[in-house]
Amino acid sequence: MPDAVELIRAKRDGSRLTPTEIRWLIGSYTSGGIADEQMSALLMAIYFQGLDVEELTAWTDAMISSGERLDLGGLTAPTTDKHSTGGVGDKVSLILAPLVASCGAAVPQLSGRGLGHTGGTLDKLESIRGWRATLSNAEILTVLRNAGCVICAAGDGLAPADRKLYALRDVTGTVESIPLIASSIMSKKIAEGTSSLVLDVKVGSGAFMRDIDSARNLAQTMVWLGNAAGVRSSALLTRMDQPLGRAVGNAVEVEEAVATLGGKGPADLVAVTLALAAEMLRLAGISADPAAALTDGRALASYRAMIAAQGGDPDAPLPVAKHTTVVAAATTGWLRTLDARAVGVAAWRLGAGRARKEDPVSASAGVICLAKPGDMVEAGQPVLELRGDDPGRFERALEALAGAIEVGAQPPDPADPVLERIVGQPPGLELVS
Amino acid sequence: MPDAVELIRAKRDGSRLTPTEIRWLIGSYTSGGIADEQMSALLMAIYFQGLDVEELTAWTDAMISSGERLDLGGLTAPTTDKHSTGGVGDKVSLILAPLVASCGAAVPQLSGRGLGHTGGTLDKLESIRGWRATLSNAEILTVLRNAGCVICAAGDGLAPADRKLYALRDVTGTVESIPLIASSIMSKKIAEGTSSLVLDVKVGSGAFMRDIDSARNLAQTMVWLGNAAGVRSSALLTRMDQPLGRAVGNAVEVEEAVATLGGKGPADLVAVTLALAAEMLRLAGISADPAAALTDGRALASYRAMIAAQGGDPDAPLPVAKHTTVVAAATTGWLRTLDARAVGVAAWRLGAGRARKEDPVSASAGVICLAKPGDMVEAGQPVLELRGDDPGRFERALEALAGAIEVGAQPPDPADPVLERIVGQPPGLELVS
Repeated sequence: MPDAVELIRAKRDGSRLTPTEIRWLIGSYTSGGIADEQMSALLMAIYFQGLDVEELTAWTDAMISSGERLDLGGLTAPTTDKHSTGGVGDKVSLILAPLVASCGAAVPQLSGRGLGHTGGTLDKLESIRGWRATLSNAEILTVLRNAGCVICAAGDGLAPADRKLYALRDVTGTVESIPLIASSIMSKKIAEGTSSLVLDVKVGSGAFMRDIDSARNLAQTMVWLGNAAGVRSSALLTRMDQPLGRAVGNAVEVEEAVATLGGKGPADLVAVTLALAAEMLRLAGISADPAAALTDGRALASYRAMIAAQGGDPDAPLPVAKHTTVVAAATTGWLRTLDARAVGVAAWRLGAGRARKEDPVSASAGVICLAKPGDMVEAGQPVLELRGDDPGRFERALEALAGAIEVGAQPPDPADPVLERIVGQPPGLELVS
Repeated sequence: MPDAVELIRAKRDGSRLTPTEIRWLIGSYTSGGIADEQMSALLMAIYFQGLDVEELTAWTDAMISSGERLDLGGLTAPTTDKHSTGGVGDKVSLILAPLVASCGAAVPQLSGRGLGHTGGTLDKLESIRGWRATLSNAEILTVLRNAGCVICAAGDGLAPADRKLYALRDVTGTVESIPLIASSIMSKKIAEGTSSLVLDVKVGSGAFMRDIDSARNLAQTMVWLGNAAGVRSSALLTRMDQPLGRAVGNAVEVEEAVATLGGKGPADLVAVTLALAAEMLRLAGISADPAAALTDGRALASYRAMIAAQGGDPDAPLPVAKHTTVVAAATTGWLRTLDARAVGVAAWRLGAGRARKEDPVSASAGVICLAKPGDMVEAGQPVLELRGDDPGRFERALEALAGAIEVGAQPPDPADPVLERIVGQPPGLELVS
């Protein structure tokens, strides 16, 4: 039997772990044979020494093998899914799943909740009266068959090793490791059973990855892992230096998603959504024009069917915040910057996000971007509208916005929200943190 | 209040921790406010990023402050002590404490037990009928006053943070970090209350430090910490590529120590002991000839007084092993190598050492070096004698000795057992692992 301390020291000193050793480590940790303090030391050693391709594959496989795999083989439509690394105002999943379903794919979108300054898809949809995030495997298949898409919580049965490891990483300063991030995301997505997958890796102040090199490395690593596991995968690197769209929060994002599904979405949100849709349809082998589905009502019809199939009332009014306040432009000029992280933190402090897993979120709280970079604004013109039910939360939310708005004499350079498309990985890919 | 995860990430990313942050970390860990899995991740980050001089001083001070400090101020003789990083056949403490005491110093030698292939001073002395390792603080002072020296277990009250941290490092692959080793050793020695301290840092196959650069770095770091805390400190780097002396075990080492105290010790053991004694007397400000004390009976008299003061009978027969076997030279020639680690592991497997803290040790088990490097041996001539009470243990002990004996046509180069003396540290000392 391997010895945990010997394996920690081996990784610490830069040696490779064998697939057998990695299976033993993940299996023993999941069953309690390896203590938290040993695994966290190993995770920190991996943060510094990385995992090579073979180690990373074994690590991901071991996490998948710790639980069940969804069997979507009975569906006639090709399956495809999207995962985003998280951003501010990122309501793309709410639009994309029904949009791609309305083009003929089956979209099994198993999602998470928000933590910190980025929102969670399930939190947003729970603004809708009656909507249920938690479904049995049989219900997931029924909703997929009937509505073409499903957005629900990943069950406890999928990659339980990842659940335990993620909770440990969160409290031990070992989240920010590319191989650990990649294996965490991909183990859940591969276990979910989708045939193809597009990764939306966000880059910029509001994203987990602040620089494009790290984002590209993460994207290449995940695409490699997906393809190696037989899941056709690609990735887009997309900008997250300003909020995506205009709404940041829960109910306010649902409202904007519905408008976008009806052909009335803001340009940046539409551009990112259509680029991801095109990628998903390409991987699923479907020839269709997703832009048409946004204007002819098909995408919206799929959305309404999905919400209803999960107990939600698509016609119910969404919660509206009791209090609002605005932040105005200090000077007249071009709005050059609207810092994504600052807006995300403000929405979080207003109640839209949670600091701990067990905290509740407010459905109505959030921030509306009344102007976006590239707009001309006048001194005193409202740029952001803060919304919330708890007046005591506005002060700290406003504090988060200090310096977030930059107005200048020149307009910002026009910027395509999609930065890069990654369909494979270069030879000699370095999978090091 | 600082946040543990933020501090782990700061150290991971190469930032310095402030003295306040370090005090908070050590204090919270000792009181249970920081979990083992957080501290082990921090320790692994320190393994990679090191601690600078200010951080290391704060870390050591915080461990000292976690417990009590012995007050040796009431003694009239100047206090001086020695710490060894551990080696095979290293019975120097048993000789050195009474030797230096017989020259006029007070030697408060608070010691540990053996773990792994190196023996522990307390385990060795417990071969003596009636001898007690555990004394109260009042008893320590009484023995010191009456015998001039004491060798006993460091009480639970000294640096309890180090006790908890060491146990964690042992199971998380974070032992081998120079700042962590240095702070662990020095926090206990400073808390012990000695006025001066000599560090015997062993280098070679049987030592914790395999190469001289690491050993020198550790020695310089400890000397710096000692002097900074007002404890006059110096270090010797000494060879540990062959066992020190001829006996490796518990009772067999006591027997060799007594012979050495009576002026009949093996040359290498005498040389190392006298070099350390000279250093201790220099730091204690005592002018004396320790070599004379080994031949005129004074050192042995101090030893007998110390043993008796701790309940031991210095005249009681020592345990003798029931079984022996020998390993012979394969060819005729000069004995060139007698690998310290292999001999240490063999003695350990015979029962002289323990694999876990709670294991008992055998008093009688051990290995006797019948020849030493530099001796001429004939094919078939016994080189090592293995001793033990459990015949089932000999096979694995013999396995450890494969390749340990090297005989050649040329004698080995003569080698001084003392490699270097370190009395300060160079400017710009790098205290990184």
